[in-house]
Order: sequence, then structure tokens, then C-alpha cells
Amino acid sequence: MALVFEHDVNVRWRDSDALGHVNNAVYLTYLEEARDAFYLRTMGDPIYVIVRLEIDFRAEVRYADRTVRVEIAVERLGTTSLTTSETLRTAAGEIAAEARVVTVRWDPDSRAAVPFSDEQRAGLTEYAQ
Amino acid sequence: MALVFEHDVNVRWRDSDALGHVNNAVYLTYLEEARDAFYLRTMGDPIYVIVRLEIDFRAEVRYADRTVRVEIAVERLGTTSLTTSETLRTAAGEIAAEARVVTVRWDPDSRAAVPFSDEQRAGLTEYAQ
Amino acid sequence: MALVFEHDVNVRWRDSDALGHVNNAVYLTYLEEARDAFYLRTMGDPIYVIVRLEIDFRAEVRYADRTVRVEIAVERLGTTSLTTSETLRTAAGEIAAEARVVTVRWDPDSRAAVPFSDEQRAGLTEYAQ
Amino acid sequence: MALVFEHDVNVRWRDSDALGHVNNAVYLTYLEEARDAFYLRTMGDPIYVIVRLEIDFRAEVRYADRTVRVEIAVERLGTTSLTTSETLRTAAGEIAAEARVVTVRWDPDSRAAVPFSDEQRAGLTEYAQ
Repeated sequence: MALVFEHDVNVRWRDSDALGHVNNAVYLTYLEEARDAFYLRTMGDPIYVIVRLEIDFRAEVRYADRTVRVEIAVERLGTTSLTTSETLRTAAGEIAAEARVVTVRWDPDSRAAVPFSDEQRAGLTEYAQ
Repeated sequence: MALVFEHDVNVRWRDSDALGHVNNAVYLTYLEEARDAFYLRTMGDPIYVIVRLEIDFRAEVRYADRTVRVEIAVERLGTTSLTTSETLRTAAGEIAAEARVVTVRWDPDSRAAVPFSDEQRAGLTEYAQ
Repeated sequence: MALVFEHDVNVRWRDSDALGHVNNAVYLTYLEEARDAFYLRTMGDPIYVIVRLEIDFRAEVRYADRTVRVEIAVERLGTTSLTTSETLRTAAGEIAAEARVVTVRWDPDSRAAVPFSDEQRAGLTEYAQ
Repeated sequence: MALVFEHDVNVRWRDSDALGHVNNAVYLTYLEEARDAFYLRTMGDPIYVIVRLEIDFRAEVRYADRTVRVEIAVERLGTTSLTTSETLRTAAGEIAAEARVVTVRWDPDSRAAVPFSDEQRAGLTEYAQ
């Protein structure tokens, strides 16, 4: 049975903008925090680059939420690329955003994409939908 | 002939992360700066909410760029919603990101979507692709 | 015996800049997160404005710290103003920064300073050095 | 006669918080943008670390300001350290903040303070108050 990775992120006062809710760009920071933790768990380090991101904004997040939760599942696993399905939930459990994110495993020295190892593929497959 | 709206954004030192390039979430801030200016130009104020965003990351932006340019065109104009095609370029003119963004014209008092006026529709249509 | 208020803040990847450490402006965000929690605890809401801040930067914070701790004590309690002594510590307990911050209790409706109530003064006094 | 270095910074929508004004931590980002430009002008690169900062917040900055101005003067020039007096002004010219900032010229390879060269000292002295 497929696992879903869950990670909580604390909402900061600084995350809100003058409309009184968390700014849209900060949603990507919340997702990034959770994705870094997911990479760390399944691959030992959070070194990747994002190549594509789609996000549907469903509900506001507010400072009063204090904590939001991100759920991550693996949608597609390529040789060097990973497509994740990422859901952001408010403190009440409501869906605030749904995203699909394509990342590529990265070698910072050669500045090039690198294939996932067999062990990493096994770890990621546990979260395949 | 269709117009393309152009807006320059200054890159700040704070925009970069520990990989030495501008963080992915900040790309949305660059787009937002330009989109706010576009709304201001065509509608008189930048009051809207984002409902969907797709972005392809094509190239890094660095502090040394100092300024990036955003180009905005209208892809689809609905009753209350607007789909824009947004291109982010580095100082050298290279495409750093391409985005499609769906926004909805917003009434902050009723917290609901509102239709564009005829005058606003005329202004937006000048930028239709 | 005087209490010291303690509050932990999670370090985000986004907090670092191109020098690979947490950017100086983010130190103020860490202090703000803790101060908001302190105001909430002692006054029921975090509504205040900052009028003065002094900060000595002692050590770097890095993403690898994952969590930093802020300690807050009351240095001086005026009619409408509060001077706090705020210490930021790395995950290893090292002092990353020491700050003295003067805030003023604020009424957002009248946009003016307001005196602390007797009950608020009693709560704040428990943290007096 | 002493020069004052001036640098304009564009205000972004993202700079504001839920109180509808620019967040206090962002004031440090505005000062940093100007200080980086000042270091670049007088020393050829903006490589330094901040060791101490004092700031008095005098007035709000709002998104409607669109641009703020930072003025920088040299208050004290040491062997490896520089004390600057930094003033942030709203679009209307009102003082939003006054800061005194101590920075140290930094060698990122040895991770240690390095003395200013004679040429750098000459350049900085032009801005001495």
C-alpha cells in the first residue's frame, strides 16, 4: 500500500501580505520545506532543482492557522526526474493548495542531472500512488 | 496587433538561496510585481486572487543579473477570470521561466469574484495574443 | 525568580542567502516569531509596533541547524512601551545574536499607543530580569 | 565636503505584512540593498558581514510608496570594520528609519576579517561625515 509523506510547517507572521493572508509565493516555500524533508528521508539529502510546478490555490492560509501540513506522494519516477503530487492543508484539514511538481536529481559539482540510484528508487517507490 | 506588457524587477541579494541563485518561490514574487503593475495599468488597481499557476523553470537567475524583465500577454479573458502568459527573462534576455497564471478579479469587501467592466475588458483585449 | 520565555523557530531553506547562511534580516523574523508568541502568552494578542531594535550578530545560523531557540526577558516596562532582551541560539546552544527591542502596545483602530492593563503588567513582570 | 551615498529600492507587494505596511525585517533588506551598492561603488564588491545594527523605526512604509530611498554616510572607519549611518526615507521624503550599522570586510575563503586597502580607505573617506 502506498505511503504518503507528511510534514508540518509553522506559519510565520512574515508569511502574510497586506491582504491578511499568506502570500501565494510563500505556498511554494511551504511545499519546498516538506519536499526537502521528503528528499532527505528518501535520498539522504535535499539536492535537486525544480523544472516545473503546477499549483491550484483552493483556500487561504492565515497566521491564525499556526501550522499547515503538506502531504507528498510520488506520481511518476523517471531516470533523473521525479513528479510529486503535493497537497497543502490548513490547520483545520481543508485543502489550501494542490500541486504537481517535477524535480530533477542534481549534482551541484557538474551542475547536471544525475540518475537516482537503485536504493533511492526503492525508497521513492514506497510513496508511489 | 497585440501588445505585450513589460515590467522590470530589481533582483535583491535576499532573493538568492544557499545554492547561489534566486530561489524558486521568488520567481512568483517577480511575476507578481509585474502582474500587479499590469493590473494597475489595465484596471486601475491590483486587486485579484490567483487560482492557478503553471511555471516551467528554464534557467537560473543570479544576483549579478541585477534586473529581470517580465513580459505579460493575455491568453484568455473570462467573465471574472483572466489567464495570462508570463515570461521571465534574465538580464541577458534568456528565458528564465514561462508561466501561465489564472487570476480572478476580486472584491475585498464581499470577498467574492466580480466581473470585469466593459472598459476593463477593452483594456485587457489590447494585450490579447 | 525571573522567568525567561523560550520559543523555538524552524529554520527554512528559504532563510539562507548566497553566502550559505541565514540572512541578517531573517534574524529579525526569528525574533519576531518568538516575540509574537511572548505577547500572545502575556497579553492575549501580538499587537504592537517596534520602535527601536539593537542587535549584535555573534554567529552564523545554517539550514543544518533546523531549529533555533529564542529567549526573551523583560528589561524595562513603561506605560505603553516594553523593552525586551532577546537571545537567539543555534541548535548547539551557541549565541547567534543578542538583541534589545523596544516595542509599543498598539491600538490598530486609533493607530496610537495604548497603556498596558494592570493584568498585562503583572504578566510581564514575571519575566523581568 | 562629505558625500552621502543615495540608493533607491523598489517596494514589492510581498514586503508588506498583515498590518498593511512593510514588515520590520524588510527594512533591513532595504538597507542591505543600498549598502551592497555602496560597497560595490567604494570597494568593488559587496563582501562583508554585519556585526551590529541599531535601528529606530520612525514611520511606516507602504506598498503605495513604490520606491524608498536609502542614504549612507561613513561614521567611523576602522582597520577591518566600517560604521555607517543609514537613513531610510519614504517616497515623500519622510524619515522611515535611522540605522547605525557596523560591518566587517570579509574574506570568504579564510572566513576571517581583512583590512581595507589604502585605495578602499580613500574611497570610503569621501563619505565620512
